[in-house]
Amino acid sequence: MDTYKSLRMEAYEANMKLPQLGLVLFTFGNASAVDRGKGVFAIKPSGVPYKDLRPEDMVICDFEGQQVDGKLRPSSDTKTHAVLYKEWTDIGGVVHTHSTYGTAWAQAIKDIPIFGTTHADHLTTKIPCAPPMKDEYILGDYEHMTGYQIIDCLTEKNLDYRTNEMILVGSHAPFTWGNTVEKAVYNSAVCEEVAKMAFLTLQINPKTPALKETLIKKHFERKHGDSSYYGQGC
Amino acid sequence: MDTYKSLRMEAYEANMKLPQLGLVLFTFGNASAVDRGKGVFAIKPSGVPYKDLRPEDMVICDFEGQQVDGKLRPSSDTKTHAVLYKEWTDIGGVVHTHSTYGTAWAQAIKDIPIFGTTHADHLTTKIPCAPPMKDEYILGDYEHMTGYQIIDCLTEKNLDYRTNEMILVGSHAPFTWGNTVEKAVYNSAVCEEVAKMAFLTLQINPKTPALKETLIKKHFERKHGDSSYYGQGC
Amino acid sequence: MDTYKSLRMEAYEANMKLPQLGLVLFTFGNASAVDRGKGVFAIKPSGVPYKDLRPEDMVICDFEGQQVDGKLRPSSDTKTHAVLYKEWTDIGGVVHTHSTYGTAWAQAIKDIPIFGTTHADHLTTKIPCAPPMKDEYILGDYEHMTGYQIIDCLTEKNLDYRTNEMILVGSHAPFTWGNTVEKAVYNSAVCEEVAKMAFLTLQINPKTPALKETLIKKHFERKHGDSSYYGQGC
Amino acid sequence: MDTYKSLRMEAYEANMKLPQLGLVLFTFGNASAVDRGKGVFAIKPSGVPYKDLRPEDMVICDFEGQQVDGKLRPSSDTKTHAVLYKEWTDIGGVVHTHSTYGTAWAQAIKDIPIFGTTHADHLTTKIPCAPPMKDEYILGDYEHMTGYQIIDCLTEKNLDYRTNEMILVGSHAPFTWGNTVEKAVYNSAVCEEVAKMAFLTLQINPKTPALKETLIKKHFERKHGDSSYYGQGC
Repeated sequence: MDTYKSLRMEAYEANMKLPQLGLVLFTFGNASAVDRGKGVFAIKPSGVPYKDLRPEDMVICDFEGQQVDGKLRPSSDTKTHAVLYKEWTDIGGVVHTHSTYGTAWAQAIKDIPIFGTTHADHLTTKIPCAPPMKDEYILGDYEHMTGYQIIDCLTEKNLDYRTNEMILVGSHAPFTWGNTVEKAVYNSAVCEEVAKMAFLTLQINPKTPALKETLIKKHFERKHGDSSYYGQGC
Repeated sequence: MDTYKSLRMEAYEANMKLPQLGLVLFTFGNASAVDRGKGVFAIKPSGVPYKDLRPEDMVICDFEGQQVDGKLRPSSDTKTHAVLYKEWTDIGGVVHTHSTYGTAWAQAIKDIPIFGTTHADHLTTKIPCAPPMKDEYILGDYEHMTGYQIIDCLTEKNLDYRTNEMILVGSHAPFTWGNTVEKAVYNSAVCEEVAKMAFLTLQINPKTPALKETLIKKHFERKHGDSSYYGQGC
Repeated sequence: MDTYKSLRMEAYEANMKLPQLGLVLFTFGNASAVDRGKGVFAIKPSGVPYKDLRPEDMVICDFEGQQVDGKLRPSSDTKTHAVLYKEWTDIGGVVHTHSTYGTAWAQAIKDIPIFGTTHADHLTTKIPCAPPMKDEYILGDYEHMTGYQIIDCLTEKNLDYRTNEMILVGSHAPFTWGNTVEKAVYNSAVCEEVAKMAFLTLQINPKTPALKETLIKKHFERKHGDSSYYGQGC
Repeated sequence: MDTYKSLRMEAYEANMKLPQLGLVLFTFGNASAVDRGKGVFAIKPSGVPYKDLRPEDMVICDFEGQQVDGKLRPSSDTKTHAVLYKEWTDIGGVVHTHSTYGTAWAQAIKDIPIFGTTHADHLTTKIPCAPPMKDEYILGDYEHMTGYQIIDCLTEKNLDYRTNEMILVGSHAPFTWGNTVEKAVYNSAVCEEVAKMAFLTLQINPKTPALKETLIKKHFERKHGDSSYYGQGC
């Protein structure tokens, strides 16, 4: 009897959505789901192709990134997930992909400007791009420090992870999170689509202004907060 | 016995075509179909994923945007649809998407120039981009005013909704309409393809001239009006 | 008993490949196959969606563009096909699409430069773009004149339709042909891929030189002529 | 009894992955797998569409490019594969495609800069672009010389084929290799994705700096060498 069975299934289903949504090539991505009660999360095993993945392959780790259960080695990005779960005590899932347009913005080391309501429906500021990591951190505990690179960037830009659920790690690729891993997967697809739209917008009009504040506020509040009226309210 | 059964089915089938045509990600779009005799239209419920959508989920609303029948909450864009049905008394369907290239032009706040016969087969002028909404309207009845933002833009540019069945709402995304919702869906796909072609055309030749008037007239009249000879004449 | 049955099937199968190859949206394209013995060709009916198309729907026309057999109205581009069959007495098929990248080059009114061996495997010069039609021709027998617009462009550029099997009609879209309609369909897909590659090449390096003559000759002769050695020689 | 049966199957399966991965249009690509014990490799027959390909169609050739077994004519690029197998005695497979973005960089005659960790996960330098071939080589034994064009480029840039498993042949298209043909196919898909990301990166920020050396080293060593920790270590 696997006490992590439902957690593994949740992580498995989230991982399988990544290639279905066109967000990963081969094994370039990973999703994890947390069980706060047990203090562990389930994550994709390292380097296993999606077509071969099974729910029971998901690896269980604690918030120090130590493997707790599972026969396979966890994703090489496990410590980054662990740091985010440890520091942000109310998130339920984390996703990392190398989706094409999001990664291009990350490689260009540019925040993604907020140009339209598709963006404002999900967050109220630019999608931040964390500066590339300092050498001493790269040479140290790299994946662990990637977690702090993400957290520090939000802190420096005065952003709240509860309302800003996506980031670009400079020279690397996007990370997203959410109150569930399903929401984190959703955010990865939104990040990619917004990245593509912003790219095209600047190609059409390099002087495109940022979306006006009233529209940002209106669209974000349609979907978030007490006065939201998008969806079925459940 | 559902008196709106066939109307719901019509709206349902139109909505389902949007993801099939690659025009929507997740729930970023909605289609509605009108019954002029009953003075109501059927529209997608808010925030319901396309894969879960059923014909009976379609929500029935009147031209003030008030819900008349249905268990779910209607699309958050319902009032925009209502205004268009109320003001344009001979349209049969309305579609809104955040399709990638159309949205990029909307975000760039640029009309889509008329460069070729693919465009002229469908309309004789640029695809207009309505300027972003004034703050007092955003802070007021936003979705209702989006309807008038569309109508006012056509009026200011001296365009007729009967021959110009698509628009970009600046900083937002495209809206289309037609004598049936099926035609409105078709127009959404045409808008996206024309938006992509125009984008590429300007990348290849930033000084591309507008299509000459004789070709515009020729191609539009091949498909529209008394002397049209495209299609099977039925 | 339909005396055109096999010709209709040949045209039908060619038409059905166009959406499968991603070359047409809705009904924006048509293919025809000729029977030189009978002096007729079979072409797609006008405005019929590909999903509804049946072999028996193909319309039989003569080289004046007059309908000889079939219940439906032929493609609005029928007279263009007719002119090409009449003037080029050894071609077996003609295809017209509004494929995205080919159409973008046509709208930009630019020849597609020859940058690589993918292009040289198929033709030895730029893919020509015919200048937009003169007004008196547009106002006259438009589709008939489109045929001569194509033929005149090749003549002016001293190109042979036997080795140059594709053209862009300026402000409009590509036309291709070949000794069979299957080859014409193949050429439409090649034209689109070469158009996309050339677009990207110029974005990467706006000063990309034309492919050197020795490589053009080498690659074209690998696939064409007496000393060709590509394929199975049958 | 076919003594090359398993080798043919290996080459067949690799070839079939190329269209599945979106790397080839029609017959524009080929994969081969080597049997070092027998001193031969199996390669795709020339000009046969992928849908018609069968395992028994694979052609067996020696390292001089001479056909040893098989009814069909081998790929026109066979001699290029032969040279690479002869000179690089520990590679197991070779793949050639005209994948869209890789070919665009090859046509632009530009190395693909190293901008991010997706690239550094696979190689530590730019993806090299060999200069277009000298005329005397083109006019000589062209496909044979293409092999030496590849080898010479790596030598001149002081690159090792064991760690740099991909190259662009200028004005032509990518070639990749690996210890197995499966790895060579994987490298072709990585090359295409990295080519697309680098293209987009430069469009977003034309002054994007190269990835810093510490990140290059870190990411490459995560996946390669004695201290690698990516994957399942098998």
